[in-house]
Amino acid sequence: MSLMLDEIREQPAVLETALREELSTFRALCARFERERPRFIILAARGTSDNAAQFGRYLIEIATGIPVSLAAPSVFTLYRAEMDFREVLYVGLSQSGESPDVNTCIRRARELGAVTLGITNNPAGALAKTAEQTILLHAGVESSVAATKTWLSQLLSMYLLAWSLGADLTLEQIRRMPEWTAAALTLEPLLIERAQRYIFAEKAIVVGRGFNYSSALELALKLMETCYLMADSFSAADFLHGPIAIAQRGLPAFVFAPPGPTWTGISETLDRLESAGASSMLITDARNAEASLCRSVICVPAPDSHDSTLPIDALTPIPYAVPGQLLAAHIADQKGLNPDRPRMLEKITQTM
Amino acid sequence: MSLMLDEIREQPAVLETALREELSTFRALCARFERERPRFIILAARGTSDNAAQFGRYLIEIATGIPVSLAAPSVFTLYRAEMDFREVLYVGLSQSGESPDVNTCIRRARELGAVTLGITNNPAGALAKTAEQTILLHAGVESSVAATKTWLSQLLSMYLLAWSLGADLTLEQIRRMPEWTAAALTLEPLLIERAQRYIFAEKAIVVGRGFNYSSALELALKLMETCYLMADSFSAADFLHGPIAIAQRGLPAFVFAPPGPTWTGISETLDRLESAGASSMLITDARNAEASLCRSVICVPAPDSHDSTLPIDALTPIPYAVPGQLLAAHIADQKGLNPDRPRMLEKITQTM
Repeated sequence: MSLMLDEIREQPAVLETALREELSTFRALCARFERERPRFIILAARGTSDNAAQFGRYLIEIATGIPVSLAAPSVFTLYRAEMDFREVLYVGLSQSGESPDVNTCIRRARELGAVTLGITNNPAGALAKTAEQTILLHAGVESSVAATKTWLSQLLSMYLLAWSLGADLTLEQIRRMPEWTAAALTLEPLLIERAQRYIFAEKAIVVGRGFNYSSALELALKLMETCYLMADSFSAADFLHGPIAIAQRGLPAFVFAPPGPTWTGISETLDRLESAGASSMLITDARNAEASLCRSVICVPAPDSHDSTLPIDALTPIPYAVPGQLLAAHIADQKGLNPDRPRMLEKITQTM
Repeated sequence: MSLMLDEIREQPAVLETALREELSTFRALCARFERERPRFIILAARGTSDNAAQFGRYLIEIATGIPVSLAAPSVFTLYRAEMDFREVLYVGLSQSGESPDVNTCIRRARELGAVTLGITNNPAGALAKTAEQTILLHAGVESSVAATKTWLSQLLSMYLLAWSLGADLTLEQIRRMPEWTAAALTLEPLLIERAQRYIFAEKAIVVGRGFNYSSALELALKLMETCYLMADSFSAADFLHGPIAIAQRGLPAFVFAPPGPTWTGISETLDRLESAGASSMLITDARNAEASLCRSVICVPAPDSHDSTLPIDALTPIPYAVPGQLLAAHIADQKGLNPDRPRMLEKITQTM
């Protein structure tokens, strides 16, 4: 079995450690942001880290009202722009801490007057040295090239960052994430069986929306990296503005369908995929599973109520990530591929 | 032949009209932005319009230093967030002006205190009524579902918007765009011949970077809509952070490779695609064509020098779009598909 699978299973413990070790830093950030609240937040990252930034973007905008942008690193690295960064919080996410482009962005943002924050798994890396403040992921060594436990810990850091910016999220809600992750891991036997259907698949689409748009981006990336599927991911709304034309009989589709405000649109997308003959798998909860006509359903144990003003799907991306990770690892295994060592990839990608 | 091809050929005239008719509005914006310069800019759009917004994002950040974000419309339409929009310029792009999500975003942004601008081809549409200020695309009726002339006119509006925000771009440079578009149209016979290679293709990747990242997004969308190719698009840097794993013998790849700061990274990506056996087509200029070992090259006549401080590739996206449009229309034609009426799609997509 793969290191990737071992690392997927370590995730509840990783989240426990990150919660325990990083809370004091987030408490300090909380006090700082009360004194000087950022007007605009920019998140800079690549690959899996950029998908975590995409989640952070929705969470922070919805929960705090502060506009968020995902950085285009080439604005600094290639085009050397002079930006107006007054009142900006600039956050770099890099598991290795050694991504030259993210580090260049953080260095330039700091020179230009932004408050800078680095989120990394490497306390000794360049990112931790470059950013004013560092958040660590506490995932230990991640041996598989396909990032899993660092992904979940990055999502956790986004919740804590939103909390420190005043989001209506309690620490009690965030502290239950390891438990939800452990519950989602019990789906593994089901996913081993479902993985068989994809042994000969060559392409797939992944659809999500809102808080789970990032889940779709990340699952597509995992399917590309570990199974060599041509996997394209879409927001359900963007998908209907053109890409729906590629839907056809037998196209594998993975659809994130949590309870909450995205369900109506996701359900419409699912109907259109089904009518085109696509073969959809729904990652959802028990109630939506019953409401849909989809034949392949994965019901994820996840919060179905909470006492904040945030929509219920705000708390689903961590547990909903787990079946996707397990599926990617087991499809790779059943295809006879090694998900830990994808062709053409190294663990640390150096781009500018 | 398709309406799409007719509309591609109309583009120089559309750009001429838009330049003539909209200049006074942009001059007025110029004066307004001098009095109240926006601190942040948010661009809201779907589909092709969102790709134009992606171009605008690079151009405005690099040329004016104002941070730009591409809106996640569901933040308003589904999650009903309260945003802090002081000193924000909020721009909605919609060809039809009847996209419920973009219109909701503009309405909410206006209520929240942002300066709002609508960019649309429909003077009588809801967007023109909702936004404080309207820019028209002057593309006339666009009959093909696949947007082409509205795309080029949207790119033009991004240049003029950047100009009105003080970018180091002269009106003389912008006024030459119709001429560069006409020059690119002379490539049609070559592209008819090249289209043959893709008659049996089922998937493709499209790679671009910086100013031409949007070119890659838009060509992939056109290939999905009109040729039903499973087409995935990437920034060259993001591509190396994972998706490169899907590169294999015979994978069709389209690579935007203008002169300027992106060439080194694009060239490295191209080498890796070639070593994996992918079948690349390079959209580039004469000098880069010579420097690359790629066997299939399209040399686009485009500005190779100018007198502003902007990098040279800032002026390439309009002429570089044309060969992609022609290729998509001719591949569709040679596959026996009708690019004007893609399956599953209508001209106006209504999503929230």
